[in-house]
Amino acid sequence: MAHKNYPIVVIGGSAAGLTAGITARRHYPDKEILLVRKEEQVLIPCGIPYIFGTVGSPQKNLIPDAVLEKNGIDLLVAEAVDIDREAKVLQTTGGDVGYERLIIAVGSRPAMPPIPGFDLDGVYTVVKEVEYLGDLQEQLETSKDVLVIGGGFIGIEFADEINKTGDKQVTVVEMLSHCLALAYDDEFCAEMEEVLESRGVNIRTASKVEKIAGNGKVEKVVLADGEEIKADLVLVGIGAVADVDLAKKAGLRIGLTGGIAVDRTMQTSDEHIYACGDCAEKVSFFGGRPSPLKLASIATLEARIAGANLFGIRRENVGTVGVWSTAVGDHALATAGLTERMAKERGYDVIAVAIQGPNRHPGGMPGAVDTKVKLVFERHSGVILGGQVSGGPSAGEISNIISACVQNRMTAEDIAMFQTGTHPALTASPIAYHMVNAAEMAIKQMQECGG
Amino acid sequence: MAHKNYPIVVIGGSAAGLTAGITARRHYPDKEILLVRKEEQVLIPCGIPYIFGTVGSPQKNLIPDAVLEKNGIDLLVAEAVDIDREAKVLQTTGGDVGYERLIIAVGSRPAMPPIPGFDLDGVYTVVKEVEYLGDLQEQLETSKDVLVIGGGFIGIEFADEINKTGDKQVTVVEMLSHCLALAYDDEFCAEMEEVLESRGVNIRTASKVEKIAGNGKVEKVVLADGEEIKADLVLVGIGAVADVDLAKKAGLRIGLTGGIAVDRTMQTSDEHIYACGDCAEKVSFFGGRPSPLKLASIATLEARIAGANLFGIRRENVGTVGVWSTAVGDHALATAGLTERMAKERGYDVIAVAIQGPNRHPGGMPGAVDTKVKLVFERHSGVILGGQVSGGPSAGEISNIISACVQNRMTAEDIAMFQTGTHPALTASPIAYHMVNAAEMAIKQMQECGG
Repeated sequence: MAHKNYPIVVIGGSAAGLTAGITARRHYPDKEILLVRKEEQVLIPCGIPYIFGTVGSPQKNLIPDAVLEKNGIDLLVAEAVDIDREAKVLQTTGGDVGYERLIIAVGSRPAMPPIPGFDLDGVYTVVKEVEYLGDLQEQLETSKDVLVIGGGFIGIEFADEINKTGDKQVTVVEMLSHCLALAYDDEFCAEMEEVLESRGVNIRTASKVEKIAGNGKVEKVVLADGEEIKADLVLVGIGAVADVDLAKKAGLRIGLTGGIAVDRTMQTSDEHIYACGDCAEKVSFFGGRPSPLKLASIATLEARIAGANLFGIRRENVGTVGVWSTAVGDHALATAGLTERMAKERGYDVIAVAIQGPNRHPGGMPGAVDTKVKLVFERHSGVILGGQVSGGPSAGEISNIISACVQNRMTAEDIAMFQTGTHPALTASPIAYHMVNAAEMAIKQMQECGG
Repeated sequence: MAHKNYPIVVIGGSAAGLTAGITARRHYPDKEILLVRKEEQVLIPCGIPYIFGTVGSPQKNLIPDAVLEKNGIDLLVAEAVDIDREAKVLQTTGGDVGYERLIIAVGSRPAMPPIPGFDLDGVYTVVKEVEYLGDLQEQLETSKDVLVIGGGFIGIEFADEINKTGDKQVTVVEMLSHCLALAYDDEFCAEMEEVLESRGVNIRTASKVEKIAGNGKVEKVVLADGEEIKADLVLVGIGAVADVDLAKKAGLRIGLTGGIAVDRTMQTSDEHIYACGDCAEKVSFFGGRPSPLKLASIATLEARIAGANLFGIRRENVGTVGVWSTAVGDHALATAGLTERMAKERGYDVIAVAIQGPNRHPGGMPGAVDTKVKLVFERHSGVILGGQVSGGPSAGEISNIISACVQNRMTAEDIAMFQTGTHPALTASPIAYHMVNAAEMAIKQMQECGG
């Protein structure tokens, strides 16, 4: 059968696929690239919760296709059906395409807990499709009691956005003892719960959903302790699972957490096929064990590795540090690397220090917000393992400073000697710069312990 | 003569002196520390321009003395007069004090250009004293035409704050072709000039002041090209010179730029005397040549070195990267390391790449501001030499990320692999994160040149 051949074919048009295509274009300027995706329009994944309050509609949260054209990447809107690895042909609902190198970047699907009632009308997950989310938005317009299952960042961002409309009761039900407990130490989680509650969102932590009940349409949610919460719309945001249907069908190896197995170069078990993003297996920067994290920023990093390595290895993945942030109103939380709890659970002997104070100087400057930075160090080496920030919008970039420190395996001593720039209207004072003082306090603790 | 002896004496109560005292306390918990300063109250140095608009009065811009008490540091308000280095006694207007180790952190004085008319009433410099600035504030209340000599960051911050009151004509006269030209590449300077002009500040660049004229009180400023500008108040903000009176009197060595000579441990030519902050000589992180930079953030770094090294060397100064930021209204500029022009002037073969785009995603998110990040790399090694940022308030912390990259001598390849966290409400998108894309573009340019 005659079909078009491309040196480079990318499957998936979101953060990973698009970035893989752009990166391939940068490194292989003369090779033809085809991007195959099933969606007519691609949503900005991290922006999805904000569709329902701040941004207004799925149409205002799209990745523009102009970037494909600008990078000379052909587009085929079709579903990838199978891969003939022998012949190096991708079979799609829009026809066959030959490839020399293939990148699988098909992402993830919402996780579905095995709880009765998920098939009722009015139960939604976070499907990254314009039409599905448009339908959810329409349903929300007439909803009164919204229940969000899962208090991770997707759950709380959705809850707050939906609550913003002001005419609904919004409740978040979280199984763990705190919202965001998988990413932050308790004191940061508690802060965010307070912010959510002060804005009118109801929070039920340490609560397990037993079933979703209703007659055709959802009417209530029943918790494990017997409590019933009225609900005419339920949103499930408990995480995502790698989409490996195509990879499995093609006989590619699958990893320990269920993603497509890749080595540090992002090559799959087939040397002509790469994978990146939510569909690819990940390992942690810390110790190299499997990591379940799925974030758009991890996806783009992996895509920059895969896209550059197609015809000659030049980049390796050192493992996922885990850097990300969330915001509710003006309150932001951001994290990079291990929390104190995670580090201890993994067996590290740690020193953790938190420094609190305004992010402006003097504290009377406009925009001043009480800001907390907590850094976690390995006790004997002094190497930073991670840090968390709460405060104003700059928290997001502060966690990126921490990420730079972690990736360079800087010690508390290095960070105490870190040369920062400071300004009254933009940052904490040079005397009270959080990260530097946290490092100094950690050094003091190490000395006191004879370390 | 009987006098009190202290193991540690610090002269100076601003950013350097205070931080030196706090650091000494952390590292030498059992030693008595005395801080000697001449001011009753100490101003936050970087906050001084903001006294005149945003903050409201010198009294709202003070470093609280509580921090001394909290750290168990004794205070003597008196002027240091001389040092008997043989006897290890500091002579002050409040009596003599014996020391084992002395830290000189007496700061700088405003530079005064040799232009006629500086003695007229109504001519001010930026003296860091509550009374002096209170007098300036009073004079400003009745001024109509304010002229600021010097378009560095102090000059433009003062100009904008004074202009905010709305009832004055404010003009900045800058000798170089652009305001901020010593710290930013032209395109960033031009941006800030536009912002200032849009807010009503008059800017005269490439203009030299010939004289200040008036009958007892300033009436006008005459430029070198003959133009006369009406002025009833003139503020001179052309930089600062190290205060080395005490050091010279005590016979300490003075450095090439006029500061107290120190080695990398911040020791002066007397092994029992350290110096830090604006009064101490500095060298650049790049090549080690003398650096004229004077910033509170550099002062505090040097103080953390001096304070820790007093009774045993444990820290060394790698030289000044030069990290700092400024803001006018909502527009911030921030820089770390060398600009493209500075790098070229110093003989580096560079690749410079600027990436522009919103600092939120989608671009319709509240708070989204067009943001530009320019990174400068050494062509052959790919090592980052510096970067500049313009945009919203987060620019300040973004320059601190760049600083971390510079201090770790990261390459463009390292930065392309940098693991960032991103969030719709806090940062650029992971696909369009400025620093990472600037690094990728630089790599592409290096490859195209066969580098």
